[in-house]
Amino acid sequence: MSDELALLAANHAYYDAFNARDEEAMAALWAQHNVSCVHPGWPPLLGREAVLSSYEEIFRNPRQKNIAHRHVHCLIDGDNGRVICVETVGEAALVATNWHRLIEGRWLLVHHQASPLAFDLAESDRLLMH
Amino acid sequence: MSDELALLAANHAYYDAFNARDEEAMAALWAQHNVSCVHPGWPPLLGREAVLSSYEEIFRNPRQKNIAHRHVHCLIDGDNGRVICVETVGEAALVATNWHRLIEGRWLLVHHQASPLAFDLAESDRLLMH
Repeated sequence: MSDELALLAANHAYYDAFNARDEEAMAALWAQHNVSCVHPGWPPLLGREAVLSSYEEIFRNPRQKNIAHRHVHCLIDGDNGRVICVETVGEAALVATNWHRLIEGRWLLVHHQASPLAFDLAESDRLLMH
Repeated sequence: MSDELALLAANHAYYDAFNARDEEAMAALWAQHNVSCVHPGWPPLLGREAVLSSYEEIFRNPRQKNIAHRHVHCLIDGDNGRVICVETVGEAALVATNWHRLIEGRWLLVHHQASPLAFDLAESDRLLMH
């Protein structure tokens, strides 16, 4: 598998773990060290424990909707691979950066940040469809 | 100067360039390749040209307020140095990630993303003052 395909697979696995509310799968996707996460509206979370705890909290929220993603861009620079994509959560659209590091042959998450798009979904699609 | 001090100085220079509306200084802070930027509410921008054009557009907006920043965290991992901080723009508070790469001895920006905090400034300070 090429580096880019492996990176895309890691990104896909993130959303699969999220939508399955699978804490173990989520934990396996994150690196052990040097991790950070900025959920929409949240203060920044630093360190693996804080980041994984946040997902446990989110997974316990019965009103949490699933996340779909589209408009996926990969950018690989040595051992660093970022994926920038548009997340859709219900009618809301967000831009997510999922930053991975290639550690012992696996792309592991070291940073996630999702921030709301100021456009509705149809307008976002129009802007990004090129 | 230590790597961390140099990284903090690069982060400071970003806000100085922004607040001075200095296109040249801003251009000098960004790497030539592999750059991405997510302004609050904007679709993702990929590539140096798109990113620098966005700052030119922002700098031309007479209603654009200056950005102050606080609660600065540095995370250095080899040649990658991210700075996560809280930006304040008027009464609004945002979480910014300013990701740099050490290229030929200089920390250059390769990614910026700012996303609104769902707390007012006083509440953000309370949450982050630890």
